[in-house]
Amino acid sequence: MNQDANAAQALAERAAQALYAGDRASQRFGIKITAIAPGEAQVAMRVSEDMLNGHQTCHGGLLFTLADSAFAFACNTHGDTVVAAGCSIDFLAPARSGDELLATAKELWRGGRSGLYEVVVSDQRGERLALFRGRSHRVSASP
Amino acid sequence: MNQDANAAQALAERAAQALYAGDRASQRFGIKITAIAPGEAQVAMRVSEDMLNGHQTCHGGLLFTLADSAFAFACNTHGDTVVAAGCSIDFLAPARSGDELLATAKELWRGGRSGLYEVVVSDQRGERLALFRGRSHRVSASP
Amino acid sequence: MNQDANAAQALAERAAQALYAGDRASQRFGIKITAIAPGEAQVAMRVSEDMLNGHQTCHGGLLFTLADSAFAFACNTHGDTVVAAGCSIDFLAPARSGDELLATAKELWRGGRSGLYEVVVSDQRGERLALFRGRSHRVSASP
Amino acid sequence: MNQDANAAQALAERAAQALYAGDRASQRFGIKITAIAPGEAQVAMRVSEDMLNGHQTCHGGLLFTLADSAFAFACNTHGDTVVAAGCSIDFLAPARSGDELLATAKELWRGGRSGLYEVVVSDQRGERLALFRGRSHRVSASP
Repeated sequence: MNQDANAAQALAERAAQALYAGDRASQRFGIKITAIAPGEAQVAMRVSEDMLNGHQTCHGGLLFTLADSAFAFACNTHGDTVVAAGCSIDFLAPARSGDELLATAKELWRGGRSGLYEVVVSDQRGERLALFRGRSHRVSASP
Repeated sequence: MNQDANAAQALAERAAQALYAGDRASQRFGIKITAIAPGEAQVAMRVSEDMLNGHQTCHGGLLFTLADSAFAFACNTHGDTVVAAGCSIDFLAPARSGDELLATAKELWRGGRSGLYEVVVSDQRGERLALFRGRSHRVSASP
Repeated sequence: MNQDANAAQALAERAAQALYAGDRASQRFGIKITAIAPGEAQVAMRVSEDMLNGHQTCHGGLLFTLADSAFAFACNTHGDTVVAAGCSIDFLAPARSGDELLATAKELWRGGRSGLYEVVVSDQRGERLALFRGRSHRVSASP
Repeated sequence: MNQDANAAQALAERAAQALYAGDRASQRFGIKITAIAPGEAQVAMRVSEDMLNGHQTCHGGLLFTLADSAFAFACNTHGDTVVAAGCSIDFLAPARSGDELLATAKELWRGGRSGLYEVVVSDQRGERLALFRGRSHRVSASP
């Protein structure tokens, strides 16, 4: 890795750590960052009993929250303050209590103050459970 | 209200109560059902400190969860077992700790085994914070 | 209508006419503007034989085009140059050759440089065929 | 390629040809199928003067139509009759008159009667202009 790539990687890690430190929602759900790179993030979460909905599968809101956290960490890796403008999610298969979920976010595009990110949520068997897309909006440049 | 409408209303209330009783995720977030009618639901949630993200605003996943719960209660009011196929959300304004949120779901359309629902998330001042749309998929008919 | 509302209406009409005059795509499909107001537009189109797809129903791209034109006219009524950032469409029922379609766009929200618009596509019987949502992006202020 | 793969490829080609033969909308826009495989399709279209909108860039409806055609050919390669349930598109950059566009569709997932497809629209320089996602709905099994 050259010097620029090293600097971008260090910036990505610092930004993710700073964001995670203040992110009580992600912390409370046991979401952990498992990988960070410029424009990319992977987070993990275990489905607990109190994440189940009335159908006794993981509430879609928690699958979304996991994906949205991955998206947030990925789109903030460049050092600017970036928020979500809009997101969509397609549910492919339900998650059950005890499942170990991974959400892997990667940047599809950035232009102007906007960006597009794709997040795949999968379980411990590698089965994909949800596909998420997020549109980011940069609200301020890095200090 | 005529007899058919009474029966539909009673069915909607029973279905929502049954679904809510098993919905530990909605319960843990303090989500309460404040209104139910055939194809419609309104739920409320207070934003707590541990719902904040790294930007110190309510995590988008929690806004989604609230909207998704309203959607789930609304689309299950007809007595069938119905799940979410896909959802999208647009974020208009952030929610802060202490805000009292309402999510109001109404049915836009039903056809075959699918349905479309619109959910508006607003705060105690009536300001809209998010617009959510859900596509439902009926997995079984009522017993 | 007071003076401000009169001015806003006159601006909306001028903006729509100017945009339509250069919009060869809308013209070629026989799309006509049937109503304009600030943040609102209604357009009409007749489904011709050469708009059919391989299933012999109106190509989804043409239903989208009609809705997208309504969206474009509606979001440009304020006098700024505004383009589409992203759109979604749900198809409820097919259109057939000879159907007279209406697309009715209204503004859901504007904030910063973004806006959200809802478009309903319906036929001559008033049946809804598609629900469209567009996110706009303002690229320049009015001169 | 083994015998099963050969049969799937032959079925995909036959299905695409049959669908294209009746698709007057795709034909009128000069859309050509440039590649077909099971779950995949690539189509090409040249942007003509009469595809421009009031901003003198290619009407978003035509970019959508190109992507939607690729999606339709891809999701019908398995021999069943499949239609679009809903689609979303993000616009990254405008297309100009004379641009030679490609839309490349691939299957992300199939389950039950639904499927998800991703389509990338790019120009002759390989620049991505739009990202499209389609949800398919199978209306009948193959005869």
